[in-house]
Amino acid sequence: MSVGTPDPNPSGSAPEPNSAWLSDLELADIRRRVPILYVEAVPVRLDGTGQVSRVGVLLRGDAWGKITRTLVSGRVLYGETVRHALFRHLEKDLGPMAFPQLPPSPVPFSVAEYFPIPGFSGYVDERQHAVALAYVVPVTGTCEPRQDALEITWMTPDEASSPEIHDEFEGGRGTLLRTALASVGVLGNP
Amino acid sequence: MSVGTPDPNPSGSAPEPNSAWLSDLELADIRRRVPILYVEAVPVRLDGTGQVSRVGVLLRGDAWGKITRTLVSGRVLYGETVRHALFRHLEKDLGPMAFPQLPPSPVPFSVAEYFPIPGFSGYVDERQHAVALAYVVPVTGTCEPRQDALEITWMTPDEASSPEIHDEFEGGRGTLLRTALASVGVLGNP
Amino acid sequence: MSVGTPDPNPSGSAPEPNSAWLSDLELADIRRRVPILYVEAVPVRLDGTGQVSRVGVLLRGDAWGKITRTLVSGRVLYGETVRHALFRHLEKDLGPMAFPQLPPSPVPFSVAEYFPIPGFSGYVDERQHAVALAYVVPVTGTCEPRQDALEITWMTPDEASSPEIHDEFEGGRGTLLRTALASVGVLGNP
Amino acid sequence: MSVGTPDPNPSGSAPEPNSAWLSDLELADIRRRVPILYVEAVPVRLDGTGQVSRVGVLLRGDAWGKITRTLVSGRVLYGETVRHALFRHLEKDLGPMAFPQLPPSPVPFSVAEYFPIPGFSGYVDERQHAVALAYVVPVTGTCEPRQDALEITWMTPDEASSPEIHDEFEGGRGTLLRTALASVGVLGNP
Repeated sequence: MSVGTPDPNPSGSAPEPNSAWLSDLELADIRRRVPILYVEAVPVRLDGTGQVSRVGVLLRGDAWGKITRTLVSGRVLYGETVRHALFRHLEKDLGPMAFPQLPPSPVPFSVAEYFPIPGFSGYVDERQHAVALAYVVPVTGTCEPRQDALEITWMTPDEASSPEIHDEFEGGRGTLLRTALASVGVLGNP
Repeated sequence: MSVGTPDPNPSGSAPEPNSAWLSDLELADIRRRVPILYVEAVPVRLDGTGQVSRVGVLLRGDAWGKITRTLVSGRVLYGETVRHALFRHLEKDLGPMAFPQLPPSPVPFSVAEYFPIPGFSGYVDERQHAVALAYVVPVTGTCEPRQDALEITWMTPDEASSPEIHDEFEGGRGTLLRTALASVGVLGNP
Repeated sequence: MSVGTPDPNPSGSAPEPNSAWLSDLELADIRRRVPILYVEAVPVRLDGTGQVSRVGVLLRGDAWGKITRTLVSGRVLYGETVRHALFRHLEKDLGPMAFPQLPPSPVPFSVAEYFPIPGFSGYVDERQHAVALAYVVPVTGTCEPRQDALEITWMTPDEASSPEIHDEFEGGRGTLLRTALASVGVLGNP
Repeated sequence: MSVGTPDPNPSGSAPEPNSAWLSDLELADIRRRVPILYVEAVPVRLDGTGQVSRVGVLLRGDAWGKITRTLVSGRVLYGETVRHALFRHLEKDLGPMAFPQLPPSPVPFSVAEYFPIPGFSGYVDERQHAVALAYVVPVTGTCEPRQDALEITWMTPDEASSPEIHDEFEGGRGTLLRTALASVGVLGNP
């Protein structure tokens, strides 16, 4: 049932730091009352001149066994900087040896607005109204997806721009991925 | 005592659309549990070539009679797009005849992170952890501040870059104003 | 045969202001020695909230009768600001009643590098090495293409994102158009 | 007498690759006829979360012994990508062990327009009309200035934002430095 922005605190796993006091019920209540702030990241590999050569896309299975592609994504906690949230979710989704190079600028390449009902924007998350600051993040180490991500696939920008890959994302994130590619000057042909 | 990000629903005034169900108490509770999403706007006048010629700064008095300078600012409501929130707060603070030209891009010039305790970032809001998407917004009409803003002052970019003006802002917003000027290429000398 | 960046001073038309001293021969010589600075613009219509609702694409015929799509584009002259060059080429290509709203920020949404030989970047201009600063520019008036442009077509962002439209551009500008759409958050499906 | 944008090919040193055919006289002639494309870079050190902790400023002596501060800067050659020009000038000014991390995005944080005569923009270069694409570039290695730069000074963002440092730059580059700091969210008080 759950799509789009992944739950930052899936039942069964340890609670996140600082959020032990926010139970699933309380979070569910807040999600119906204010927009929830998220960060999203598109992990990339750079060549020697800083140009993006590969894009990392996560493969994730949900509770019903459905496989979809997604990006690094998660909630910003109370008292946490955007930068720390970004780092925490990169480590959560890519493992501790990914060595992400967080961008010096806090300005995202795009702001993705997820609404529970389609039609307000290009992005949908049936659980909540979420607003995500999205970043392109170079990684230099080894990525080993953790939690509920099955694997990370490294594609060329052209592959990642294809209609086939677009259709494997949910909630509109295929568009967010291509917007990321455009922001770094490597959007492929349609 | 309240400084920084202005209260979106000041006691005594009519409640905002869509938020009647969120009482002051409930909002106060949520503010201690998740970061609250804000928009901020720096109103500007452009010359014929699109260059910023004047910057609008609000003068506001608080409940204790203290006068401070501030920017257009307010909360994004549940179910509301960032764009609509921006428009609503511009109208709230500048009046219905300001005719703001909202930017085509949803990417802010900066992301200002306000924490209740100083030292986490350059911005402080003792009431809450707020994350503000900040935009430069050209206005072409007549600005008549409403609500608790006393007046709007139009300054040259050089005047707005001065240490004196910087010190009249609270919560670090003087830096946000100069960051806005830098983003449109008109930051004055220090 | 000439494609890509349109000639700023087509033979048969009046020379541009300030450039009378730069003959076709001299310009041809300089074009083999330094990169030439260009501006490019994607004209757009905005809805009441500032969101892009339509994108303007030019239709142009070359000396051999071939019809291709293109963007507003032209050279920055010696002594001319980027802003004035942008305004001049918008007027040249859209007519004097287009009323373009030049962006307050001098930062382009992308930098397109055109090389005479394919493979260095996504963009090709067989006449020269040109570097173009590209902007999204809202227009509020009536557009009447002048010079060698046949007409301007207003498309929805989804139409402008299609493979068919992409293929009607030359020199890689279809990608630049979609990069523009991505920068304002309205890139359509591939 | 020469200030502002440093000569990419100072007499006495070896000519740059690809430009052997462009003599000093020819370059001087072209500089009076078209705007010359430059890149500029503000080298920075990042902390573990990607935030800028130090800014690198060059100290340079001219032929008359006058000492001024400046940024990494130089011309884009014919046939050279902006990215390669940026890398080449970073190596020229910071040495081969600086290990700059070129940004994945080709979009500069600002476009600085230098005119021979003051008043057209905030930037002046008496030798030419130059348009510079300016980038913030993290460096992870050891910087050893070469050529005519005397040394590199690493400052905190607050120090680099001060009026004293501003006044030690020529051609308006103190403003470009503070614009760089603003773009990465660390502009200090005026």
